[in-house]
Amino acid sequence: MTSGYIAIDWGSTNLRAWWYQAGECRDRRTSSEGITRLGGKSPAAVLAGITVGWPDNIRVLMAGMVGSNAGWKVAPYLPCPVHFSEIGSQLTDVLPGISIIPGLSIRRSDNDNVMRGEETQLLGARELAAAPLFILPGTHCKWVQADNEQIFDFRTVMTGELHHLLMNSSLIGVGLPEQRQDAAAFERGAGIGLTTEAPLARLFEVRAAHVLGDLPREDVSEYLSGLLIGHEVASMIRQWQPDNRQPVTVVASHSLASRYQRVLDILGFKAQILEGDSAFQAGIRSIADAVAD
Amino acid sequence: MTSGYIAIDWGSTNLRAWWYQAGECRDRRTSSEGITRLGGKSPAAVLAGITVGWPDNIRVLMAGMVGSNAGWKVAPYLPCPVHFSEIGSQLTDVLPGISIIPGLSIRRSDNDNVMRGEETQLLGARELAAAPLFILPGTHCKWVQADNEQIFDFRTVMTGELHHLLMNSSLIGVGLPEQRQDAAAFERGAGIGLTTEAPLARLFEVRAAHVLGDLPREDVSEYLSGLLIGHEVASMIRQWQPDNRQPVTVVASHSLASRYQRVLDILGFKAQILEGDSAFQAGIRSIADAVAD
Repeated sequence: MTSGYIAIDWGSTNLRAWWYQAGECRDRRTSSEGITRLGGKSPAAVLAGITVGWPDNIRVLMAGMVGSNAGWKVAPYLPCPVHFSEIGSQLTDVLPGISIIPGLSIRRSDNDNVMRGEETQLLGARELAAAPLFILPGTHCKWVQADNEQIFDFRTVMTGELHHLLMNSSLIGVGLPEQRQDAAAFERGAGIGLTTEAPLARLFEVRAAHVLGDLPREDVSEYLSGLLIGHEVASMIRQWQPDNRQPVTVVASHSLASRYQRVLDILGFKAQILEGDSAFQAGIRSIADAVAD
Repeated sequence: MTSGYIAIDWGSTNLRAWWYQAGECRDRRTSSEGITRLGGKSPAAVLAGITVGWPDNIRVLMAGMVGSNAGWKVAPYLPCPVHFSEIGSQLTDVLPGISIIPGLSIRRSDNDNVMRGEETQLLGARELAAAPLFILPGTHCKWVQADNEQIFDFRTVMTGELHHLLMNSSLIGVGLPEQRQDAAAFERGAGIGLTTEAPLARLFEVRAAHVLGDLPREDVSEYLSGLLIGHEVASMIRQWQPDNRQPVTVVASHSLASRYQRVLDILGFKAQILEGDSAFQAGIRSIADAVAD
């Protein structure tokens, strides 16, 4: 083993790899060979391909769907509540020096939940932008209650996937022209989402509004995004009642995170944005450091 | 013109036709040539095909998406509130004696909505099973406030389409075995749907529950159906606060209507079920009678 390590974020549809040496990122690569898109190759062969030319005898730490039952090897979920320190001490080895970081699960009568990959971002986020409430938007947005030591609870809202499905596969999106970015349309949708008690009833109205000419046909995507995110944020805040004197950390690309930030602001919460890759890198680094000790 | 008429229910994906003479149904036919599936044929040719052998000089009354901007000819929406009597007096003729029944619309700051086809079922439902609240489940479930004279307001919940999308195109349905009918799984989902304030957060948990082994993989469809219908009914009842001493009329096939009936029963409402075709036939008949007078 050298003092370096390779960090792999291996999801369903993508693979991203970083080579670190002496605390510095020496190279980074991406591939579309996500766990569901291996095209007949073995995970070991894909890993060898994406790391070709990088040092051989170096620790590899992988997070994400690579540890699911459709992945390389099942890395059992750690049940919550869980101490952050347990995550790095429960690695699943697939080959000598090549390990998968465990996902987290919740099994309660009021909440069945799982995550894979976000636990690594959370490890970094609590170092870089501590908060009692983390939001990790994306296809399946995670809401996480944590302090500096433990992850207590989390929930998942499939807002990103729903937006995609509704725009691409439902009647809402049929026959629409190219969509445009428009903050005002987002805000208009968010206004509905924040206040409605019947979000599913408002979805059809997105179509009715543009059929009747009350919503520009180019603005449907933004309006729907506002409606879904507005409802997500309002319902999760109502359910968890977080202290609005504490910050909320939103872990995502700036453009996505700022949508949550706008809605949180309307509800009187101060959000700090942390870029997802930064959180992931910091999380992997803390595990690499712990393993090296 | 003879004393008979032909009733056509022409939706997006199907066409159904009935020939009535002297108040009696003489023949019925169905076709998959819905408005979005004409396969290059003109609507007039499809109509001629489905009615071949039936009397020529007979009134034809059509309802549904045939009157949309993707249909034969646009039959303008009647804005609500609207008197039931106006529906039959605002027909749009496409050829002599061949008419389209108008759809209904709502344009308010708190509700943009449209329906096509259900207005004809409502015409029949108020005769056969009067109630102040009608529910017309299906791909896009309609909730309608009406009395014997007028339709006051309606909303649409795309519960059927969402169930289909989530089972067939989202992560929830990936890799599931054949699904089974199971009333207990429906009730379990309905229990969640009836009480949750964050229905979109509970959708992902449907997947998590079967991944973690807390929900049989054959029961996902029923459980999801319960969750969606439970939330739909609870949120619409909360929003509209109907009088639970009055009946609710559910217009649908028995198997679908009984799902709504079960959930309404839990909330203390008495539902009467009216089969959708019966409602449609009675609605068309009342228009045919009005036109003949």
